[in-house]
Amino acid sequence: MVDASTTSLVDSPTPHCGPGEALIKVGLLSIDPTIRTWMNDAPGYLPPIDIGDVIRSGGSGVVVESRSEHYRVGDVVNGMTGWQEWAVASDANRFAVLPQGLGLDLAAVMNVLGATGLTAYFGLLDVGAFKAGDVVVVSGAAGATGSVVGQIARARGAGKVVGIAGGPEKCAEVVELYGFDACLDYREPGLSRRIHEACPKGIDVYFDNVGGAVLDAALANIAMHARIVMCGAISQYNATDREGVANTSMLIMRRGQMKGFIVFDFAQRYAEAHVELAAMALDGRIVHQEHLVPGLENAPAALNLLFTGGNHGKTLVVVDESVRLD
Amino acid sequence: MVDASTTSLVDSPTPHCGPGEALIKVGLLSIDPTIRTWMNDAPGYLPPIDIGDVIRSGGSGVVVESRSEHYRVGDVVNGMTGWQEWAVASDANRFAVLPQGLGLDLAAVMNVLGATGLTAYFGLLDVGAFKAGDVVVVSGAAGATGSVVGQIARARGAGKVVGIAGGPEKCAEVVELYGFDACLDYREPGLSRRIHEACPKGIDVYFDNVGGAVLDAALANIAMHARIVMCGAISQYNATDREGVANTSMLIMRRGQMKGFIVFDFAQRYAEAHVELAAMALDGRIVHQEHLVPGLENAPAALNLLFTGGNHGKTLVVVDESVRLD
Repeated sequence: MVDASTTSLVDSPTPHCGPGEALIKVGLLSIDPTIRTWMNDAPGYLPPIDIGDVIRSGGSGVVVESRSEHYRVGDVVNGMTGWQEWAVASDANRFAVLPQGLGLDLAAVMNVLGATGLTAYFGLLDVGAFKAGDVVVVSGAAGATGSVVGQIARARGAGKVVGIAGGPEKCAEVVELYGFDACLDYREPGLSRRIHEACPKGIDVYFDNVGGAVLDAALANIAMHARIVMCGAISQYNATDREGVANTSMLIMRRGQMKGFIVFDFAQRYAEAHVELAAMALDGRIVHQEHLVPGLENAPAALNLLFTGGNHGKTLVVVDESVRLD
Repeated sequence: MVDASTTSLVDSPTPHCGPGEALIKVGLLSIDPTIRTWMNDAPGYLPPIDIGDVIRSGGSGVVVESRSEHYRVGDVVNGMTGWQEWAVASDANRFAVLPQGLGLDLAAVMNVLGATGLTAYFGLLDVGAFKAGDVVVVSGAAGATGSVVGQIARARGAGKVVGIAGGPEKCAEVVELYGFDACLDYREPGLSRRIHEACPKGIDVYFDNVGGAVLDAALANIAMHARIVMCGAISQYNATDREGVANTSMLIMRRGQMKGFIVFDFAQRYAEAHVELAAMALDGRIVHQEHLVPGLENAPAALNLLFTGGNHGKTLVVVDESVRLD
């Protein structure tokens, strides 16, 4: 967890917009579990955030000054803003210009068309090699990524979609709001047995957002040729002793595979995902909700919500509510 | 471990050879770690051996009577003989007729061209998607499968081949006899650090025969897009509490995959492997040794050798030494 000694809010001059750069007024910050991993002084897929640096974060904003051919004043853009009020787009830090007039507001676009939705899309369809009829199990099912995974699977003809989430309220949300066939509460005992009861023929695709004991229970229940999508391990990010996974031999017995990925690996293919995700959000096949936390100063608390389960849907910090899409 | 209460040697009549069947006089038994897994009353890739049944096992023998078009008297055949002196080939239990005149004796054929060599071949090349230049790490490197994995990798142009084995004697054998670039003793402390020193750019293919803590140490050291071949977990077969693997999140960080397989999955492609494996054994690119244990009554003790590390090379039980290839 992030406490008062982890971050501090400091004033500094508004950054200068040099040649080839654009100045961005930040509107929303995307609060993602992976930010917590960047705070570790340990091997990762990006370097650790250095002491004294701005916290690395996705975010969106509006271009207020541009000396770059890539951005016009008034463009609403998405990229790595960091936890701050102003960001600079440059060749080293490129932003995507968001589409106007889609009928989705900025928070929804950052959720369904942002890293969250893209992670769900490429994780399920590419890494998980999902096909119609598959039995799909998703952990973190009430979360921003997990809820979209299950809805894509359902829209694409899954045999069954079962979520795993924490507590009866979240589990009800997964079934009633997101339309999963069932949801299992990992806080109750006997998770492996309950997965077996929900999926008696085994799991074809397990989309793992949490790692640890939940991953182990899923491994115990994989079907032949199962694909385990290693997306996140939120149960382990704050752990001092990581939980071991004992059932890896099930991969041999069932000829299964576990495969990890980072959504950035698919950057060349975001456009194809955007088309389908936008269509699904607009016609209601993807139900989504955003959990808005007002104020840059509350970004650390917003990050902690992801680990306490206190959020509902995609967590975003509102830095400037005037930044909007048409 | 198998003790005196696990098995008993019993006399029964020589089996009858019915229509479509062949009677086989068993020569050698293939003693493989997987036999131990078939003794568990737990999910597996084959049903557990029932109490009172013959112990399931690969083996070879000579056809002494045939009422099948598939076998002639005098054929030396390989298949699932079980731990017994006589076996029956049938439509439900097919045997492969072994090639005569290759210049390899029966024990060598059962090692390099048998399940052991085939497991190494398909595991490394197909499941592991090995390519020239890869840094390959193999656990159980002094074992029958592991020693062949490393030698195929070397012959196919690996960047580096590092073994992991138990004790200085085995490690010396891996380097001096099997020609690996290095071998690490897992019984010494700091295995993860020593893997890092041997493979500073990380592991491209890790061929896992042992599971548990060794697998965990390898996971900590994978390179980007690493392939982990899940072949066996010999460290866990006798364990009452399985060791957990804590570093599965490295699959996310490094976009790695762990994939399990059983050699039987490749049965349609054995012929292509036999050609290459036989050529490599004959010209010395694959050095092999067989550990012969005389007497059917010693089969349980021979199986235990695999878990104590008391064997050198492929362990075979000699049931009848008169059964030979030309």
